[in-house]
Parts: sequence; structure tokens; C-alpha cells
Amino acid sequence: MASPAQELSPPVGLIAAGGTMPFAVADSLLARGIRPVMFAIRGACDAARVQRFRHHWISVGQLGRATQLFRDEGCRDLIFIGSLVRPAFSELRFDFATLRAIPQIWASFRGGDDHLLSGVGRIFEAQGFRMVGIKDVAPDLLMPEGSVARARPDAAAKADIEKGRAVLQALSPFDIGQAVVVIDGHVVGIEDIEGTDGLLARIARLREQGRIRSPAGRGVLVKAPKAGQDLRYDLPTVGPKTLEGAASAKLAGIAVAAGNAIVAEPQAMIAAADRAGLFIMGMTG
Amino acid sequence: MASPAQELSPPVGLIAAGGTMPFAVADSLLARGIRPVMFAIRGACDAARVQRFRHHWISVGQLGRATQLFRDEGCRDLIFIGSLVRPAFSELRFDFATLRAIPQIWASFRGGDDHLLSGVGRIFEAQGFRMVGIKDVAPDLLMPEGSVARARPDAAAKADIEKGRAVLQALSPFDIGQAVVVIDGHVVGIEDIEGTDGLLARIARLREQGRIRSPAGRGVLVKAPKAGQDLRYDLPTVGPKTLEGAASAKLAGIAVAAGNAIVAEPQAMIAAADRAGLFIMGMTG
Repeated sequence: MASPAQELSPPVGLIAAGGTMPFAVADSLLARGIRPVMFAIRGACDAARVQRFRHHWISVGQLGRATQLFRDEGCRDLIFIGSLVRPAFSELRFDFATLRAIPQIWASFRGGDDHLLSGVGRIFEAQGFRMVGIKDVAPDLLMPEGSVARARPDAAAKADIEKGRAVLQALSPFDIGQAVVVIDGHVVGIEDIEGTDGLLARIARLREQGRIRSPAGRGVLVKAPKAGQDLRYDLPTVGPKTLEGAASAKLAGIAVAAGNAIVAEPQAMIAAADRAGLFIMGMTG
Repeated sequence: MASPAQELSPPVGLIAAGGTMPFAVADSLLARGIRPVMFAIRGACDAARVQRFRHHWISVGQLGRATQLFRDEGCRDLIFIGSLVRPAFSELRFDFATLRAIPQIWASFRGGDDHLLSGVGRIFEAQGFRMVGIKDVAPDLLMPEGSVARARPDAAAKADIEKGRAVLQALSPFDIGQAVVVIDGHVVGIEDIEGTDGLLARIARLREQGRIRSPAGRGVLVKAPKAGQDLRYDLPTVGPKTLEGAASAKLAGIAVAAGNAIVAEPQAMIAAADRAGLFIMGMTG
């Protein structure tokens, strides 16, 4: 883990993929007087929204061009931020710097997605850059402790949360399972590569099919990083969409590791929870 | 666990739910000269196929009538066999014997499905019956050791099998996960209440969506009972449908705990594997 936010050396380079998070991080930095430079990944980063910030376009597989741009901009501190669908290896076009790093990248590629990012991160670090994470650059975007919406978990929900945490703990050594759904003590679903939204859609479908018999308004989505995961590269994220999914799955609420998960659009997320009467719990310890 | 097959006291009572397994077990018993009596569960057991055997119809929630029938037929040894969708509590009609047992059944009902069956099993045992399992009555229907189809697992598949076993082991304390799919070292899906067929359909869909980038013909379904599970009540089952699902999910094969999983329609299963070029491995140890 890199050192705390105050020791950042501006400008901070944001290697920006999809979704709203790159812009939330950039705004958070600007609010604290730290200048961001966006290195927008072609095909992933939102072209309209990136216009607001100083930016360059980069391509996956063009490490040489990317590192040259980082240097030109005087960025020492770099962060990967945003969602990135894993590219098909055959679709990539490589520059020479990338080709030189191929054995290392290939080894990462065969691991999980976070291994892929950390593999590329190690290549950047070998060239003198410092990889930082959300905890370093925008701690205000992390999940706080305690309840953040109007509803509160009851005793049954608290028991489901504890069971969910235990399941995630058991799965920690494996490259799967940042989230689990527990309803009335039953583990009804574990997140896999289809992600949290996919998991919640599945639970909603099982409810509709009558495969889950517990009444509506029961059960919890529990979400936490894997133990030993490099939090600079793969912090769990929740946002309004997570709450909409949890509402469709007719859960009582969601529980998220406080300080170890990103909240995308907190206001919209809390509004979505309050509309559906769901709780949002920041878990500690 | 009850004593071995030779100590069965005929006739053996088969409490028969859905699918082909009740008839396979009855045929296995008959082949060894042991008389079966079918207690066919209304709404679950195949009415046409049960005609071949001595049988009575029983209803979930009618424990009094069921135990009277067991006694009338002179059945001391009983086995639950076949697939049963968990009934909605509100749909059940109870007789007095069942109403007396309700607190006990309710406690089971809040646990997993195997807890529900073992709860009812304990009620029968308290009345002098002996609950037995497939291992006791029809060991010939269990998965054998080693490869049973033409294809053989390669080194990558063997590594995937080991990873899958480790994941199932980690999930053992929880009421989920009798099966997992591992592809090139990635855990891509864990079985939940949608069952093995549902898991394989999910993997097939993720393949179609391009969310799984590994080439076709790679990856393994690994299936084993949970540690500490009462194998009389909930043995994993594989059959032709499992192989068809694995073929649709473009896996290399399936690995199943030898001696601890039921094979439904072994010939049809092996034919399905050979058609698709998949291996079937009976795992030991």
C-alpha cells in the first residue's frame, strides 16, 4: 500500500477505464487542490465526460506510449480506476515496450483480473512510477462505518450478514466471491465472474421462479474484498445500481466493508435505498 | 450411516420423489433379490413408471398415514430417493402425527434441504424405522473411481480439478456449493440453489456473451458432497443431463467424488460424454 493522501506528488495520473468512478476521483482530487491528468483507455472511458479534464487517450497493449505520456505530464503517482472488460488477447495490438513485457503480462493474464492489473502495475513500478489506490487518492469516496440509509438491519439481517462474512472469508484464498447473498440463514448465491449486478439479477429471477421461498424484504447482499487482495487494484464498488439490484432481489439491505469499498454516487445510492426501504451497512472489523 | 447392503431387512421402503433414480434403485434391489415397496410422493413421483412396482401414494405433511403404510408393508428400512422441490409451508395439509412433529420439522425447515430431510428422517427413526442411503441399498449406482468415458483429463484439467476440490472444501461448512466450475485456473462459477444444471447453463451463457475468454473444450465441473453432510439424505447426482450441460458450457469434462455421488443412467451419461469428447473422472481421496 502506498503512503497516505497528503504525500501524493501531483499531478496524479488516472488511468481511466469505464463508468463514473474516474470522474468522481478526479473531482475529489481537484476539490483538495491536487491536479489530475486522465489517461483515458480507448473503448472504455467515457469520451464526453473526460473532456472536462486534462487528458490523453491510450490503448491497452501500448505500454510504451503510455509511459512516455506519464513522463511528459510529470506524473509519478498513477492509479487504475474504472471498469474494464478483460480484453481478448488476440484483439490487442502491442507496441515494442509491451512486447518486451509480454512474458510477465501473460503470466498475469492467466491469473484473475486483479492479477492482470497488478502485473501491469509492477511493470510501471519497475520504470519508476508509483501505483496508488483509491484509499490514497480519494478516501472520501470509500464506504463509511455504520448505517447510511434510513432503514436499519434487524436481528435476522445481522445474522445473515455474519454468515455472509464467514462465506467470503472461506472463499478468500480463491479468485472468486467478493459478494454473497444470504437469506434467512441460507447462502443463496455467490458472486462469480458475472459480478454483483449479475448475482442480484439471478436472485431476483430465483425469487420470481419461486425457488426462494423466504418472504420479500428479507436477506442481505454482503460485499467485501478478498483477504490478501491488493486493494490498490480491485476494491469492491457499490452504487445506486447495486441498490436497485438489491431491491429487485427483494432483499432487506446490503452490507459493505467500511473503508474497503468504493461508493459510486453516494447520494443517488442512499436515495435508491430509501425509496425501496433497504438498509446500507458499513461493516467494520 | 446404516450398515452395509447385505444387512438390509427386506422389504425396503423407497420414499420416492421425482426423476429416474427411485426406479433405478428399485431395479437394483430387485436384481439382488431384495423386494422394494414404493411410497410415491404425490406431485413428485412419476405415476406411469411407479406402476411396475408395488406402491402406495403418500403426501408431504401426512406423516401419520405414511408411517402406518410403512408398518402395514412390514418395511423397517426406509430410503428417501428422488428430487423434491421444497414445498411452500402454506401449501401443505397436515395430519395429526405431522402437527405433533411440527416444532421439530419447522426447525429443520429453516435449515437447508438436507436438514429438512434429515429432520423427517429423525422422526421416522424415533418410531423404530431405520433410515438408509444409496450406499446401503444400491452401491452399484455410485460413481466408480477413475475415468469412465473415452476422453482423459490433461494436465490443465487436472489442475482445474484440484482447484475445484479446494474451493468445495473451503465452502464445506456452509449450506451451499456441491459443485464448482474451474476453467484454466479461474473459478468461474459456484453452484447455488439453482443447482448443477443451472450452474452449467450460466457458464454456457457467459461463454456466449464472451465473458469467459478461455477457448472451448477447457475447464471442469467438479462435484462432491459437503464434508459432514449426511450422505443418506443428499448425495450429489450426475447423469446424461449433467454431461449435456457440461458440453453446452464447452468444458473439457467433469470430476465427481467416487463412491460419494449417484450416477443416473450411466450408459446414457457415458454416451453423452463420448459424443461431446468430454471426460468423466471419479475422484478419490
